[in-house]
Formats: sequence, C-alpha cells, structure tokens
Amino acid sequence: MSRDIVGAEIEHLIQLLSRLPGLGPRSARRVALHLIKNRDKLLTPLASAMAEARDKVVTCSQCGNVDTADPCTICTDPRRDNGIICVVEEVGDLWALERAAAINGRYHVLGGVLSAIEGIGPDDLNIEGLIRRAAEPGVSEIVLAVNATVDGQTTAHYITERLKGLDVAVSRLAHGVPVGGELDYLDEGTLAAAFKARRPY
Amino acid sequence: MSRDIVGAEIEHLIQLLSRLPGLGPRSARRVALHLIKNRDKLLTPLASAMAEARDKVVTCSQCGNVDTADPCTICTDPRRDNGIICVVEEVGDLWALERAAAINGRYHVLGGVLSAIEGIGPDDLNIEGLIRRAAEPGVSEIVLAVNATVDGQTTAHYITERLKGLDVAVSRLAHGVPVGGELDYLDEGTLAAAFKARRPY
Repeated sequence: MSRDIVGAEIEHLIQLLSRLPGLGPRSARRVALHLIKNRDKLLTPLASAMAEARDKVVTCSQCGNVDTADPCTICTDPRRDNGIICVVEEVGDLWALERAAAINGRYHVLGGVLSAIEGIGPDDLNIEGLIRRAAEPGVSEIVLAVNATVDGQTTAHYITERLKGLDVAVSRLAHGVPVGGELDYLDEGTLAAAFKARRPY
Repeated sequence: MSRDIVGAEIEHLIQLLSRLPGLGPRSARRVALHLIKNRDKLLTPLASAMAEARDKVVTCSQCGNVDTADPCTICTDPRRDNGIICVVEEVGDLWALERAAAINGRYHVLGGVLSAIEGIGPDDLNIEGLIRRAAEPGVSEIVLAVNATVDGQTTAHYITERLKGLDVAVSRLAHGVPVGGELDYLDEGTLAAAFKARRPY
C-alpha cells in the first residue's frame, strides 16, 4: 500500500499470500479480502487446515511422497504391485499419474532433476534410495516417468547407467500425440516421435 | 483425486484452497504442494497470519473498512479532512483509491450495490450509516466513487435522492480516457463521455 492504511496483520497476510504460485500482489489482496469477508466459511477452516498440514504432513522415507503417514498410503497399499517402481521428479507428477490411474505399482520421487546450471548433482536427489529399492527382491521394472525436458532426459540417462548390473528392466513413458491434441499445434519433435512409434490400426 | 492417495488433511486443504478467488482445482493442488514443500518459510507463517487475521481483523463500525482497530486507522487519522466522505462499494475499492493517494478525506463502504436481480435492497447495504454521517456538522461533500456499472449508478442515484435536504454537495468520479489508455481499445460510451467533458489544453 502506498500509505499505511491497513493493520500490519493484514499487510503481512497479503505479503505472504503474494508468494504463493500463481498469485501476484493484486490477486493476493483480492484473496486476503475474500478471506476476511468469509471468516467463518473460509478463513477459519483454512487456517486450521494449514496448521494441521504443518503438524501432520510428512515425507515418506521410502518413496519421497508427501502424506500424513510414513511409509505413505501408496507404499503400504497391499493391492499394489511391488514389482514396478515409477520414478517421477516431483510429488505433483505422482499426483498427476494417480489421477490418470495408469499405474498400479509403487513410486519413487527424486525431488528434482540433475541440472548443471542450477548446480544440482546426484547427491541432491533421492537417487541412492532408488538404487537400493531397485536391488530389492521382487522388483522387476523401473519406469522413468521424468519430464521430457533436457534435464529430465539427462537424469533418466544417469539413472539408467546406475541401474546397469541390476536385474531390472528400465522403461520410459511413450512419446506421441496427446489424446485430444491437434496435429497443427504440436511441435516437430513430438510429431516425428509419434510417426516413428506408429502402431497398426 | 481419482483414488485415495493423499491423506484426508491434504485433500481438505486442497479443497479449501480451490475456493479462493482465482484458484481452481489444478492451481489449488499446486499451491498445496508449494506450501508443503516450503513448510518453514511459507506454510507455518501463513497459517499463523491467517489465525491472526481471524482473531484480530474487525469491521470498522463507522465506515465499514476492515482493520485491526475499530474505528479504523483512516477514521482516526487526525491529518485527514473530516469534510469529505468518499462512498465506495467494497473495501477493495477503498484500497485501490488509497493506492492512488487521491483522497485525503474519510471513506464509507456500502458493502455492495442495490440489485433488483440479486434481491439486494437499501436495508442490505450500509446506507443509513452514511446518511447519519452526512448529517454530522462539518461534512461538506459526499463523493460517490461507486463502480460505473448499471447497479452502481442506480445505487448512486438512490443515495443522491436520500441526501437531498442535507447541507452537503454530492459529486461523482469523472469519466474519461484512462491514463495510458489507447483510444482504439476504448468503448464508445467512455469516448463520448471523455469528449463531452473535454478541457482546455
């Protein structure tokens, strides 16, 4: 604010809200006002939910997922296939794959990707844990579901090298045309990959 | 989530976040993950700031502004002109005018506008309080800074009628070309108003 017209508490709330992804100073003010106007319906429950998340949410020591239990719900689910471990960069990727309900195995969250520019090496990621899990009896396949970026592919390559010598198959997600996607809007790399990997109709 | 893979606490947090203005289910998940990943730097202070706002923020009984004091900082500021009361629809409008640092008087927040469609009548707004304040000695001008919408103008008209008989001037914000605005992108109504209200160069 250009002048000191709101209490320090509101100013502080706005400042913190503006650090959330997707919110800027203007939308943070809008959110703060919305919260204040809906104190009982939104501000109070949200403050409690955040306090609860702060106290209860933990990182799974096995796979790196976030949950209120360690090991997490996925790691302890008896209906899931122990033989497949799907490697993702971030918890958000795990959630996206779960929404697709495509995988009935376990996950492993790396916590990022190798990046020379940002100075992120193998020791900064949860790679040792993956190698350890891949060597456990019963594990037959590691699916590298990292992003199709340069850093993601570098990381996939590094992990593949590290897994050599273990008795596991290593696979990656297919490249191709997104379901519902229009060819005209796709980049050349995706189109070339989709053509190369064409399948009988 | 399609399957029950996160604890009820995280699911609850996401569901509450998705009710904030400007956030949908996808961005709410992103915000929740960002909060969990930045527990000490963001989640903990934000939970405290929200609890503090919940406990301390009150509506000013005089003008309808929100603040941690009642009467609010603006109503009690001795440097401000008691003679001018600027009438706005919502607290967000008050904040916007304060950022412009255009007004050195007091404010009055209506809490909305008259709307036949939404069934909002004069008794649902803070209009009686305004009439009372306008009748106080020393008040010389009421500036109607309501939005330039049909409902806003209806409300302005109603308030003007109610203020008749009191010894106060009633004014409204000027219409015209926004500063930095391009004529080509402006609607006809604004351009016609700006031409009509043209001023010597």
